[in-house]
Amino acid sequence: MKQFAIIGLGRFGSSVAITLSKMGYEILGLDISEERVNGIVEYVTHAVQVDALDEHALKAVGIRNFDVVVVAIGQDIQSNILATVMLKEMGVKYVVAKAQNALHGKVLERVGADKVVFPERDMGERVAHALVSKNIMEQISLSPEFSLVEMVVPPQFVNKTLVESQARNKYGVSILAIRRGGEVIISPRAEERMVEDDILVVIGKNDRLQKFETVEIG
Amino acid sequence: MKQFAIIGLGRFGSSVAITLSKMGYEILGLDISEERVNGIVEYVTHAVQVDALDEHALKAVGIRNFDVVVVAIGQDIQSNILATVMLKEMGVKYVVAKAQNALHGKVLERVGADKVVFPERDMGERVAHALVSKNIMEQISLSPEFSLVEMVVPPQFVNKTLVESQARNKYGVSILAIRRGGEVIISPRAEERMVEDDILVVIGKNDRLQKFETVEIG
Amino acid sequence: MKQFAIIGLGRFGSSVAITLSKMGYEILGLDISEERVNGIVEYVTHAVQVDALDEHALKAVGIRNFDVVVVAIGQDIQSNILATVMLKEMGVKYVVAKAQNALHGKVLERVGADKVVFPERDMGERVAHALVSKNIMEQISLSPEFSLVEMVVPPQFVNKTLVESQARNKYGVSILAIRRGGEVIISPRAEERMVEDDILVVIGKNDRLQKFETVEIG
Amino acid sequence: MKQFAIIGLGRFGSSVAITLSKMGYEILGLDISEERVNGIVEYVTHAVQVDALDEHALKAVGIRNFDVVVVAIGQDIQSNILATVMLKEMGVKYVVAKAQNALHGKVLERVGADKVVFPERDMGERVAHALVSKNIMEQISLSPEFSLVEMVVPPQFVNKTLVESQARNKYGVSILAIRRGGEVIISPRAEERMVEDDILVVIGKNDRLQKFETVEIG
Amino acid sequence: MKQFAIIGLGRFGSSVAITLSKMGYEILGLDISEERVNGIVEYVTHAVQVDALDEHALKAVGIRNFDVVVVAIGQDIQSNILATVMLKEMGVKYVVAKAQNALHGKVLERVGADKVVFPERDMGERVAHALVSKNIMEQISLSPEFSLVEMVVPPQFVNKTLVESQARNKYGVSILAIRRGGEVIISPRAEERMVEDDILVVIGKNDRLQKFETVEIG
Amino acid sequence: MKQFAIIGLGRFGSSVAITLSKMGYEILGLDISEERVNGIVEYVTHAVQVDALDEHALKAVGIRNFDVVVVAIGQDIQSNILATVMLKEMGVKYVVAKAQNALHGKVLERVGADKVVFPERDMGERVAHALVSKNIMEQISLSPEFSLVEMVVPPQFVNKTLVESQARNKYGVSILAIRRGGEVIISPRAEERMVEDDILVVIGKNDRLQKFETVEIG
Amino acid sequence: MKQFAIIGLGRFGSSVAITLSKMGYEILGLDISEERVNGIVEYVTHAVQVDALDEHALKAVGIRNFDVVVVAIGQDIQSNILATVMLKEMGVKYVVAKAQNALHGKVLERVGADKVVFPERDMGERVAHALVSKNIMEQISLSPEFSLVEMVVPPQFVNKTLVESQARNKYGVSILAIRRGGEVIISPRAEERMVEDDILVVIGKNDRLQKFETVEIG
Amino acid sequence: MKQFAIIGLGRFGSSVAITLSKMGYEILGLDISEERVNGIVEYVTHAVQVDALDEHALKAVGIRNFDVVVVAIGQDIQSNILATVMLKEMGVKYVVAKAQNALHGKVLERVGADKVVFPERDMGERVAHALVSKNIMEQISLSPEFSLVEMVVPPQFVNKTLVESQARNKYGVSILAIRRGGEVIISPRAEERMVEDDILVVIGKNDRLQKFETVEIG
Repeated sequence: MKQFAIIGLGRFGSSVAITLSKMGYEILGLDISEERVNGIVEYVTHAVQVDALDEHALKAVGIRNFDVVVVAIGQDIQSNILATVMLKEMGVKYVVAKAQNALHGKVLERVGADKVVFPERDMGERVAHALVSKNIMEQISLSPEFSLVEMVVPPQFVNKTLVESQARNKYGVSILAIRRGGEVIISPRAEERMVEDDILVVIGKNDRLQKFETVEIG
Repeated sequence: MKQFAIIGLGRFGSSVAITLSKMGYEILGLDISEERVNGIVEYVTHAVQVDALDEHALKAVGIRNFDVVVVAIGQDIQSNILATVMLKEMGVKYVVAKAQNALHGKVLERVGADKVVFPERDMGERVAHALVSKNIMEQISLSPEFSLVEMVVPPQFVNKTLVESQARNKYGVSILAIRRGGEVIISPRAEERMVEDDILVVIGKNDRLQKFETVEIG
Repeated sequence: MKQFAIIGLGRFGSSVAITLSKMGYEILGLDISEERVNGIVEYVTHAVQVDALDEHALKAVGIRNFDVVVVAIGQDIQSNILATVMLKEMGVKYVVAKAQNALHGKVLERVGADKVVFPERDMGERVAHALVSKNIMEQISLSPEFSLVEMVVPPQFVNKTLVESQARNKYGVSILAIRRGGEVIISPRAEERMVEDDILVVIGKNDRLQKFETVEIG
Repeated sequence: MKQFAIIGLGRFGSSVAITLSKMGYEILGLDISEERVNGIVEYVTHAVQVDALDEHALKAVGIRNFDVVVVAIGQDIQSNILATVMLKEMGVKYVVAKAQNALHGKVLERVGADKVVFPERDMGERVAHALVSKNIMEQISLSPEFSLVEMVVPPQFVNKTLVESQARNKYGVSILAIRRGGEVIISPRAEERMVEDDILVVIGKNDRLQKFETVEIG
Repeated sequence: MKQFAIIGLGRFGSSVAITLSKMGYEILGLDISEERVNGIVEYVTHAVQVDALDEHALKAVGIRNFDVVVVAIGQDIQSNILATVMLKEMGVKYVVAKAQNALHGKVLERVGADKVVFPERDMGERVAHALVSKNIMEQISLSPEFSLVEMVVPPQFVNKTLVESQARNKYGVSILAIRRGGEVIISPRAEERMVEDDILVVIGKNDRLQKFETVEIG
Repeated sequence: MKQFAIIGLGRFGSSVAITLSKMGYEILGLDISEERVNGIVEYVTHAVQVDALDEHALKAVGIRNFDVVVVAIGQDIQSNILATVMLKEMGVKYVVAKAQNALHGKVLERVGADKVVFPERDMGERVAHALVSKNIMEQISLSPEFSLVEMVVPPQFVNKTLVESQARNKYGVSILAIRRGGEVIISPRAEERMVEDDILVVIGKNDRLQKFETVEIG
Repeated sequence: MKQFAIIGLGRFGSSVAITLSKMGYEILGLDISEERVNGIVEYVTHAVQVDALDEHALKAVGIRNFDVVVVAIGQDIQSNILATVMLKEMGVKYVVAKAQNALHGKVLERVGADKVVFPERDMGERVAHALVSKNIMEQISLSPEFSLVEMVVPPQFVNKTLVESQARNKYGVSILAIRRGGEVIISPRAEERMVEDDILVVIGKNDRLQKFETVEIG
Repeated sequence: MKQFAIIGLGRFGSSVAITLSKMGYEILGLDISEERVNGIVEYVTHAVQVDALDEHALKAVGIRNFDVVVVAIGQDIQSNILATVMLKEMGVKYVVAKAQNALHGKVLERVGADKVVFPERDMGERVAHALVSKNIMEQISLSPEFSLVEMVVPPQFVNKTLVESQARNKYGVSILAIRRGGEVIISPRAEERMVEDDILVVIGKNDRLQKFETVEIG
């Protein structure tokens, strides 16, 4: 089982830590603030108050033995960069670092971060996509043209079969799966009838998907 | 075409604004900081320096005529709440507000926000899921048991057909689509041969998906 | 006997706490500042230093068992709002919250405050009314036209009987009671003679009351 | 017509200013903060940004000609005291000053304030009294024993006449007036029947009043 | 022997305390700053860290038993005023208070200070007087016209007798005493010969004194 | 006529400037604060806002032509020292500098200050001396043993002649002058009778002077 | 002729700028502080107030055309790093960056700085070396064993020839040059006589050099 | 063996301390910051947290017994000056003080510093000199015209003998020594052949040295 250390337990870092912890992984949470350490201690394996730039302290918690270390320090770009370079110097195998903007991201890559994430930027993009449609819940861009979306069944297709919906013929999209309550129907048959509250997994070109679900909000 | 106003142009807000702008929507960006307004002005239709709690100023920009107003104010919970309630009082139809934590989210719902988002928490969850696998790029939880994942083809399946991979028989997962360069192959045939750098869209139970791609990092 | 908890022990909150305490009620005073807790401790049943947003701590003092909780936090609107919503979430039956302005008041109502008070605004109104008359000590607006006032007997009526004063005939006001020293004469007879330092309780239309006491200050 | 100047336009000061203005008096509002001056300007005759300790500026606005000057400066005790003494030195006839606590009040009296008010303390007392009863809306203490209260008619007396209520015989209190909608019935007859939503003006000893309205909250 | 308490141990207060201590008086030094208390402790009878506005603490040190209390608090005018009024309320017989300017001085007098001092203003005046003359060391204004000065013997009078100096005849000033080394010659005879480094005590009209010593600096 | 420049217009500096100005000297006042410059401008010849460490600006006002420059900068020891050394470097003939304590004073002497003053310390000493006696108004120490004092005539000597007072015989002090109203009697005759409110100038040993006026305060 | 741009005009940066300017090079000085820009403007070709992280502004001054850009930003490590990476991204050929410590230095190297300097550390080392000897003025370490030093001629060798000094035979060091006043004698002959105030350039092993000049300080 | 004390353990001070410590000297490090003291403690003989202006504390560590005391306090000019004068007052034989600029340096000299250093200015000059040449590593100015430089052998001279390089004939410079790996060849013969990576010690006039090494960077 992999072991993860998360440095910086703000909103993003603590969300990473708690999610991994719920998935059953062993988590070490680290932060310079005692308050934030206390706030997470019941959700993770260990939580320690430590200055991310104190090499001795990081050695003392055995940081080198962790499979992945996430540098989730947010406001303080300087500490974020210095911690990343220090962890790589100390021999940590895989360091994930959170960047605030493109320039910051470039620095992190150059100083050796194995992966750079931009949570606010990415989340902004996701929220933006969700805003333009009432029904679409999640969206994965497969290419600039193609997307995979999770959407509530549009009202006009309720109580219609897949064939009747003309999803493929008229709209050029494919319904790959239907989630109905706790159950998931993979590659549903053409005669499957969609009912209210069904969640569809649909793939297709972006403009076709948009037509299929007739965007409307508010 | 819908019109969006984004109040608060930090990392999250500006990402929402720029993404919507790229999708062709008309965007009004608002922030109390002149610096942030200047930073976004070339990416959106209009950007104005304004105090989110100045009712006169919001009226002057015609905030009521926007289809959706996103309150993306981050640090200042007080302004975030007061702006939300004021916008609803002014008759804005659909207000999306960014919450910092569960308690804050409850307040926003009660004062009338039509949608509450938790970007750092959600992004932390996504990053956590991505961390536990080297190959998985995106993941949508369909139910507590089922997920849909976008993954790099695992090395052991390169140059194998779908049949040979025993995805369905041995692992119990379904390969719904393959992205190969710019092209997307929907519902690929069983004889389709996977090649290096293929991106697979796979659906299945969580533990089966995990076995299928044999987690390994760092 | 009712039990009251007061959160926030500034000038307003401590005045509420001490007044209730003098009336014989059991009072719990709470504040984040140790100094303010120490300042009130001798006047109330219990006083505890506590962060109003620390749910565990509030549970530990049994906040749910109090009949009324007053959120008297003043400067920090954010804490004021979040504490109010948290108390209602925790099941407190009756929450009174202090608002700084109309917008703040609206938020408090929407998040579930059972009563919202505006002490500075209300006190400003009372002081304003008191300023326009030398003799009037207290005033209750019964309707936009009618008021009930407590006033020092105007000099021109000293040593006159109620009949001689022509209060009802000439001025159209009614003298409902006279306070003389520690004694109160309710529904005084027409022959009752007013003496210096008498305090009258008078009811009537606003303009009539004003004429009756001939406004003069300074 | 009297003229009033209000120095310090925070929540208390602006409430004094606006109330007097609505009563038809000529008001000059003064504050060191441009923002607060702008916030009040549409409600009062004049509003000027001025340092309360700048004698030249106060002379320039003719402060000596005002009948009453209210020193409503709140946070800054030093400015509050120095402004009060300076106004008296300049010959202002009647200066009202807002005190934060008893010691502060003593200083204000000694330096010549003609009237000292304690808005937060007084309002705290009023709110406290209102909290102990569901029906009582306003209360004036006539003596330590006697009070005059404005109360919603208690449910048990709805549709009863005054005689039937036994207000005087059983409870020892007198109903001096009834407000019904916009109308006020002064010295109601014994046969007058109380209906729902009536507001009573009642006088009596405190313990009797309490029994009469049977306290109940929440 | 009198007892003195000095509240506020800055440069002025500590100088008062140390000077009185050297004169043999019993001194209690009080300050809110531990550092300043430690700095004075070896020079005075007692030194205690105390908040000047904490009535309990002042009682605990028996402030009422001191013959004179000096309020030497400098920067914080508010504490300076409130401490003064509180000391008088507590019954201290003689309170000396340090004022920053004329307005502040007026407040102190009105709140009951028995003596108000203006050290920086007074010292500025003394230094100004000393600057206009090279020889004059100290000066006491007896009236707007007359002064008493301590001066180094002007070079032109060295080795002259008093008669030869024509102090009285030509300049109209009187030499009341001569300090020569540790010795003081009171009412010196006319034949007394002045020698280098003699210090003269001279009385006369201001313009005459100025001529007598022929001003020259730098 | 000499010309003076005063750098630093706080309480001490402005008192020096105004006193010299009243004596008829030409004064240039300099301060980094516009507010303080405006406060003094009507009392002195010129007042200019200037950074005391800006050599160009000091040259522009012709600082080298002034006979005396007083560095009255108080709080900021660094600027006080650097300004002093810069003025001497620029060739100013006579620089007076204000010191905060003994160590600071040593630095000022070493960097070339022609005179160092300690106003708070000196004033503290003077106030201390004044406090130990009710009658003594001013005191000049001539030697560790001898002093010259200005005192209100002690009550026991009112209406006695100098001879009757036994000032010289019994107490060993000499009355050098008597100020009576606006008039000054120098070397008064033995038969001169002291009357109430007379101010005496007395010389003598310290212990004798103390006995002569019988110390009493409060 | 090369062109240099210096970003950050503190003590180090301005010294670099002024030195290069005196050597005849064309210099552009950049700083975010207007005060620092004004302080250097007369010593360099151009000086501009600019935010080092404002890419547009840097393009506007043609930063890419400079042969060398020195990032001399000191206190703000974050800006120092981000400016360095941005300059390299923009295509600047040679970027010199100032590091605060070893870890910072590593980051700068990794983000592409062509040269990293540690002025305070290096200067500390130089001053340390100078302190251990009274005569040595400058020292270059050629290897851990060998140094080249510039030293005042030791007193014991004054008026001796090189041969008589036995520099080579007894001490094993070589005198490579002698500076006498403005003149420099390269490879001086063995008969050259050293005189007072001569400056010698000597090469040798460290322990030999130390013996040659017999360390003595203070 | 000499003993050194270093007051102020920032980047410059700690570099001085560590360098001297490596050279075998006994070092006492002093700083007001516990953090900085802890950071140096393993590199020096003793390190103590102390206020540089606390005379008692300095006596307690026996500061007078040290041969040299370095005042390396950087940001706080006031403490830097006061510490320097206090150390000289206490009798320290040799005080080295770090100056920020020329004016500060003058003060330090006048208050008695035995040596004043300007590390940032000096280092700026050195870096500037190094920047104008790709090959030159170190440079000592012997006179305004002559310099001694340590340089990498210029590419055009690799594999040439000294004679062939025409260093003396054509360029007028002398090659005094060659460092090759760990070895140093002093006064090399004319037939010595320079090889790649050789480091030359060359003396000559500045313009000649520049031609010899043909400046080129970037």
